[in-house]
Amino acid sequence: MLEMKGIAVSNGIAIAKAYCLVEPDLSFEKVTISDSEAEKKRLKNAVAEAKKDLEGIKAEAERKFGPDKAAIFQAHLLVLEDPEMLGMIDGKIDEGTNAEAALHEVSTTFIEMFEVMENAYMKERAADIRDVSKRLLSKLLNVEIPDYSRLNEDVIIIANDLTPSMTAQLDKTHVKGFVTDIGGRTSHSAILARTMEIPAVVGAKTATKDIQQGALVIVDGSKGDVIVDAEPEIVGTYQTAQKAYLEERAYFEQFKGEPSISRDGHHVEIAGNIGKPEDADIVLENGGDGVGLFRTEFLYMDRTDLPSEEEQFVSYKSVLEKMKGKPTVVRTLDIGGDKKLPYLKMEEEMNPFLGHRAIRLCLDDTALFRTQLRALLRASIYGNLKIMFPMIATLDEFREAKAILEDVKKELVTEGKEVSDTIEVGMMVEIPSTAVMADLFAKEADFLSIGTNDLIQYTLAADRMNEKVSYLYQPYNPAILRLVKSVIDGAHKEGKWVGMCGEMAGDEIAIPILLAMGLDEFSMSASSILRARAQIAKSSKEDLEKHIEKILQLSSNKEVSGYVKQYLMKEPK
Amino acid sequence: MLEMKGIAVSNGIAIAKAYCLVEPDLSFEKVTISDSEAEKKRLKNAVAEAKKDLEGIKAEAERKFGPDKAAIFQAHLLVLEDPEMLGMIDGKIDEGTNAEAALHEVSTTFIEMFEVMENAYMKERAADIRDVSKRLLSKLLNVEIPDYSRLNEDVIIIANDLTPSMTAQLDKTHVKGFVTDIGGRTSHSAILARTMEIPAVVGAKTATKDIQQGALVIVDGSKGDVIVDAEPEIVGTYQTAQKAYLEERAYFEQFKGEPSISRDGHHVEIAGNIGKPEDADIVLENGGDGVGLFRTEFLYMDRTDLPSEEEQFVSYKSVLEKMKGKPTVVRTLDIGGDKKLPYLKMEEEMNPFLGHRAIRLCLDDTALFRTQLRALLRASIYGNLKIMFPMIATLDEFREAKAILEDVKKELVTEGKEVSDTIEVGMMVEIPSTAVMADLFAKEADFLSIGTNDLIQYTLAADRMNEKVSYLYQPYNPAILRLVKSVIDGAHKEGKWVGMCGEMAGDEIAIPILLAMGLDEFSMSASSILRARAQIAKSSKEDLEKHIEKILQLSSNKEVSGYVKQYLMKEPK
Repeated sequence: MLEMKGIAVSNGIAIAKAYCLVEPDLSFEKVTISDSEAEKKRLKNAVAEAKKDLEGIKAEAERKFGPDKAAIFQAHLLVLEDPEMLGMIDGKIDEGTNAEAALHEVSTTFIEMFEVMENAYMKERAADIRDVSKRLLSKLLNVEIPDYSRLNEDVIIIANDLTPSMTAQLDKTHVKGFVTDIGGRTSHSAILARTMEIPAVVGAKTATKDIQQGALVIVDGSKGDVIVDAEPEIVGTYQTAQKAYLEERAYFEQFKGEPSISRDGHHVEIAGNIGKPEDADIVLENGGDGVGLFRTEFLYMDRTDLPSEEEQFVSYKSVLEKMKGKPTVVRTLDIGGDKKLPYLKMEEEMNPFLGHRAIRLCLDDTALFRTQLRALLRASIYGNLKIMFPMIATLDEFREAKAILEDVKKELVTEGKEVSDTIEVGMMVEIPSTAVMADLFAKEADFLSIGTNDLIQYTLAADRMNEKVSYLYQPYNPAILRLVKSVIDGAHKEGKWVGMCGEMAGDEIAIPILLAMGLDEFSMSASSILRARAQIAKSSKEDLEKHIEKILQLSSNKEVSGYVKQYLMKEPK
Repeated sequence: MLEMKGIAVSNGIAIAKAYCLVEPDLSFEKVTISDSEAEKKRLKNAVAEAKKDLEGIKAEAERKFGPDKAAIFQAHLLVLEDPEMLGMIDGKIDEGTNAEAALHEVSTTFIEMFEVMENAYMKERAADIRDVSKRLLSKLLNVEIPDYSRLNEDVIIIANDLTPSMTAQLDKTHVKGFVTDIGGRTSHSAILARTMEIPAVVGAKTATKDIQQGALVIVDGSKGDVIVDAEPEIVGTYQTAQKAYLEERAYFEQFKGEPSISRDGHHVEIAGNIGKPEDADIVLENGGDGVGLFRTEFLYMDRTDLPSEEEQFVSYKSVLEKMKGKPTVVRTLDIGGDKKLPYLKMEEEMNPFLGHRAIRLCLDDTALFRTQLRALLRASIYGNLKIMFPMIATLDEFREAKAILEDVKKELVTEGKEVSDTIEVGMMVEIPSTAVMADLFAKEADFLSIGTNDLIQYTLAADRMNEKVSYLYQPYNPAILRLVKSVIDGAHKEGKWVGMCGEMAGDEIAIPILLAMGLDEFSMSASSILRARAQIAKSSKEDLEKHIEKILQLSSNKEVSGYVKQYLMKEPK
């Protein structure tokens, strides 16, 4: 029996045989050949074999997942039939290059050409060509490419890391869990696992080295544990835990489509945080009442230039359409701090978390800001858009941001573009000054949304990424709770609603306190939505309210969490 | 006429001729000599000449400043007569080294030897030897060393930067101002200027390049302006302004030795911030009611190892004795952030201001902390000591620090050492969480002292050293004022006193607000004490109180400062 520890990234327990994804060795040397006709023949045979494989995979995919999911293989087949590309490879062979090198050189040229294109469809062609040329190369080298699409039994995927093209081919019906050597909470593998709602542990370092194909693997995606070839009684314990987990999930499932309402009839909104348009689907699948935070940074990252207004418009529109009129809070660009854009000239800062980031940067670079606002306003007619500014510290900044928004709106109207006139404009409360002044901000904002990750970091003056002071990341510290209460009270006095979109909103210790204080909207990762709704359904706001005064007089994070566990999380009689 | 802009570091206006301090070029080459007797003769002559110079300087210094200030030159003369050192130089010459190199090598050995000594007296010998060997070298090279000690007229010193050994020799009676190329508010030159209470501008970049010896220079140390060879009418304007400034200073002088009391009879304490034991003298000269902040970092900086308990004890004792029973608040080590100690292994941090600093570090490295506390407790019997912990974020931390202090106290008592039993133990309120929880902290602390520099930085999430967000350094932001008020109210409810030791405490816009809110102790740089006392003497606390509610509803730093200027700073009728 072997136990490994990694990062828990997707809850649940899986028990199944290991299926190791190994990248085939497709290395080759460039050599000069004399018989170019024979070499072209080799290529032709490789193309024919690849085509046969792909047709088989495509048929299987159609049968299992329907034509939609099989479309990618049709695209691959089209690449194989592209006369221009094949002609260029033949040309290189005629010049004396061996088929492997000719294929590599030509496909690289095509990939590079497509990758720099703005059009998303064209960009995807680069990935197609990469996959197809890999398949062709394997045929030329006579190396087998593992076929991930034809699993016959339930497995746990073991990989160094999961690449998008690997996962596209995975037969997900049989995939019960993931374990990877590298990655973190936001790696592709982790996000995929949460999307598929299957347990996953990433960053297990030596998983591919230590786990044999077919070994029995237990993955505890809530704790980060991986156990290989466990003794029967341990397997039994995990089977029991798995059953309990699934029963709990099934219990939570009952709350899908139900309103978010406490036992004593108090309505709240439970929304999801998203980072990409596709994530809106997962929020809806998890019964979210809306999107409480759409982080728009994704549009700006992992690229070489600023996204155009049109690109942004398409993204925002797609989210709003998916959400079908449900509230959708979009946060304007929050870049800087630990998030840098290589193509924006951003100076090194001694304390980037206290630096020139988010709205501060947008108010300085209004061209950048206005492009995003134009895209947002144009998309506004496709749903229930609410615009939120991040890192506001002073009323002057909020006023300035709102004035720019108004100006952009006028500009669009002058151009004859349609813009919704019911867009709510709010702000994040994540800097202590805004929490302290919430009553005044609420006079000028349509809503406030508390960003607890940063609010905690600034209120306790502790970098949340710095291990040496991580003990100060204290969401239940009474100082935080007092600030949260003053934000809620301040906003309600002005008749405005208050949301929370930090991790705290989905935290089971915090939820009873926040419910009692009157928080209107809880926005969290999609996978927590049903659990939170279930918890609120069991709670009586009126009963909880009695404890708030007492809690705000407690002296520490630990005392609060102990108090909540003892008095606020009991099952109702 | 030439105008230059630098950093204003010491108030007032000076008009005098430029006196340029230029470091002489004392470079030389090491060569092999054949006639060692002739070389030793050269050295002997140089020693004789240097001795003659020093005797003259010493006599002049005695006449002008008394034997105390002339003692340093006596020490220099002793070095010149040291047979061991001179013998070693002769020895090197006998081996064939030229006199310059022999002198340099031997003196370096002595300097290094003395510099690592713990004893402060021995350390000073290193500086003596450095100065003397420079003088000897100048004689050997026949390069004249400017003699700063014999000024015959009033001058403004123009220098790249002022080194401590330059200033030791300066005839300060004739120095009316400073202008330097480099430096900032806390550079040696700036501190010296404030200590001497003469106008100074530092960081003027090209001062030494652009200002000729003897040119007429105007220094406006309040604004950072330097004007060279001004037209007569401009000189006239500055003469008028200078007169007004001096009259104001003379007016402030009346408040020396007076109690700090408002027009309607409300008593406060106006104390000074100090960084070194000697600064206590300046606080007393400026009529300070006590020391509100003794930053103990100086003891740890610019050295190669930790200061011993004994060294610290001597420093703390000397400050307490100087203060003769006046309240003396000593802050325990606030290192980390932008202040690093090379001999402590401190990891690089992404956001040092949100990192492992001050009390966080002391609670982790208790040996370091206990040494300081032992020294403080042992010194406590020599005055009115109050101990203050910096960067407290949570009650747990404050309790832990207090428990260590109690334990150290027991340890000392067991050892038979005397410790005062009336030491107040308090904390800085500079992290927003402590401002929000001040009512609870006040139950356990004897006093609270608000550190506004950091409190502003964290409350507005803006690095105060980062120019791009310096617009967010807003002391009058109503969020800051609300927090300050809640600290004062929270502490008073528990019968505890509240001080403030950030720059804000000496700020003329802030003073009326703080007085009205009931701040008990204002601690500031010594040079602001009399001005603050004069301002408070003119103010009626009762009148000011009427404005507080209104001020806390204003929306910005600018609105507050406008309101204060309009309504709170009027002369009484």
